[in-house]
Amino acid sequence: MSGDANRQVLLQSRPSGIPQAENFEIVRTGVPAAGPGQLLVRNIYLSVDPAMRGWVSDVGNYSKPVGIGEVMRSLAVGRVVASNAPGYAPGDHVKGMFGWQDYAVVDPATVERKVEDGELPLSTSLGVLGINGLAAYFGLLDVGQPRAGETVVVSTAAGSVGSCVGQIAKIVGCRTVGISGGAVKAQLCVEEFGFDASIDYKSGDLNDALDAACPEGVDVYFDNTAGAISDAVLQRLNVGARVVICGTASVASWDPPPLGPRAERVMLTRRARMQGFVIFDYASRYAEALAALRPWVQQGLIRYREEIADGIEHAPGAIAELYRGENLGKRLIRVADPA
Amino acid sequence: MSGDANRQVLLQSRPSGIPQAENFEIVRTGVPAAGPGQLLVRNIYLSVDPAMRGWVSDVGNYSKPVGIGEVMRSLAVGRVVASNAPGYAPGDHVKGMFGWQDYAVVDPATVERKVEDGELPLSTSLGVLGINGLAAYFGLLDVGQPRAGETVVVSTAAGSVGSCVGQIAKIVGCRTVGISGGAVKAQLCVEEFGFDASIDYKSGDLNDALDAACPEGVDVYFDNTAGAISDAVLQRLNVGARVVICGTASVASWDPPPLGPRAERVMLTRRARMQGFVIFDYASRYAEALAALRPWVQQGLIRYREEIADGIEHAPGAIAELYRGENLGKRLIRVADPA
Repeated sequence: MSGDANRQVLLQSRPSGIPQAENFEIVRTGVPAAGPGQLLVRNIYLSVDPAMRGWVSDVGNYSKPVGIGEVMRSLAVGRVVASNAPGYAPGDHVKGMFGWQDYAVVDPATVERKVEDGELPLSTSLGVLGINGLAAYFGLLDVGQPRAGETVVVSTAAGSVGSCVGQIAKIVGCRTVGISGGAVKAQLCVEEFGFDASIDYKSGDLNDALDAACPEGVDVYFDNTAGAISDAVLQRLNVGARVVICGTASVASWDPPPLGPRAERVMLTRRARMQGFVIFDYASRYAEALAALRPWVQQGLIRYREEIADGIEHAPGAIAELYRGENLGKRLIRVADPA
Repeated sequence: MSGDANRQVLLQSRPSGIPQAENFEIVRTGVPAAGPGQLLVRNIYLSVDPAMRGWVSDVGNYSKPVGIGEVMRSLAVGRVVASNAPGYAPGDHVKGMFGWQDYAVVDPATVERKVEDGELPLSTSLGVLGINGLAAYFGLLDVGQPRAGETVVVSTAAGSVGSCVGQIAKIVGCRTVGISGGAVKAQLCVEEFGFDASIDYKSGDLNDALDAACPEGVDVYFDNTAGAISDAVLQRLNVGARVVICGTASVASWDPPPLGPRAERVMLTRRARMQGFVIFDYASRYAEALAALRPWVQQGLIRYREEIADGIEHAPGAIAELYRGENLGKRLIRVADPA
């Protein structure tokens, strides 16, 4: 390891809205050593997630914001290089909140799981078998509680979470309607992810498109956007509908919260339920979800896409890129050879 | 009965917001006769409820709106005058959706229940043992699911529903915070209805008052108002909080819905749940609620207030009066002697 360096992406300034490349800086330090009871992990893939916008915000957050000058918080998967912790040996693949950096020294408590996903690529542990698939699984099944025959509408439907939500809803026996931005994504929703109907919100009238796609109304709305898309879907909720708040991608800043049509009346008259969730609350049940997701992925019932960028220099601008909707798949940064 | 007349309050025009006296007219017709299988009921008390605003609206409604020229839909309690239906005899007291009128000919299916509430006055069947107590019971316990030690905040806390919510929450072991308008109601909340803290939203800064009254945040918000009061409470939700949407009294018109700060982010970060409910959905479980409410009222654990106006001529203006917040208790119209 001597002679090698640890490149780290630090939060340099606090963004007021979507984090941009200039809010980060890349520094080089020495490779750290594992202390007693610790592991040294060589990261292989770094994750890029919409939730990271919240992690650096001091408004509307659900966790302590990343401090200025700290390594950017991030999920990552890597290989154990040195272990002073029982149960971990060099060569093991591990996944956890290891940060945007080449090397991480961590306590075993920081390891979410050892990655032993059989034939599936290591990268899937950060996507369809990671935060995205887990959010889809618990958000849809536990919060949304869809029943066969119901209509499930998903926003950012071509994204890593949305595409998985749609496919799980199909497995449950629901009619699925995906909302995404642009013709390419709208086509992906149908051809790749099997949505029964696909709406490009950037083309034509969203209300008309929803009327056509949801002739029997909306029973479950899995919401990744908030904003105008949600306003239109909410008007079509059926009695007893469930709204799952997973993300708020369409809102650039929550300081102060933007104005929108009040939802109280539609919630009352439709006896509807709106519920927010944060995937990390389900950590104790991840194994249950993975036991279902792994075979679904292996059997092709759940398809996924990844967009992998090579080199840590792609990390700083990657969150802004996500929010510009430029990705067609889970965005990962590869910082070492997975082989 | 011959020579007697049936005075009826008809919907004369559709209000755009809160129904006013001029939206109704009073007509006199003959007393109708019960057909085969029907009952003739002499109404004694007519109910006045905030929900009636919704019943005459063709926007944001959950039931078929009352038609122009039809008798105003209303709960009422009365005495059976003539019965062609098995199980009902003259002299029985019955309660149901009998309308704002002196006499109603109804099918047994329209009778919600026979009123046999022991020592409690007949009028309570429309309030604390009627729609208000039932809404408080199911809205708080079934939708809000409070646990001992939690903080429950109630809007329109001095009203028929809100006062009952606060007292049931105390029975459950919660800390209760009541929000009402004006010093008299704020005092009632503490002295009559036992709220632990009382906030007059018309006096001083609501945010400061909520901070002082809810040092440990808000676990359950029972919302009868929507609007600015809700916006302030929502900012103080704890992780896992429940918001019960029972009414939207502060919003004059939902056509179009007024704008307010978007709630998605606070719902997400607090993993909170917002759920609307309509009491009539619980009809099959009323007996369960009454079995709990009756002894609570008899033991003085639930106190209630009524404001009874004598004469059907008070009905047309009564809904607007409710929304002006002028009542200090359940508003009833007495149209016959209960004795």
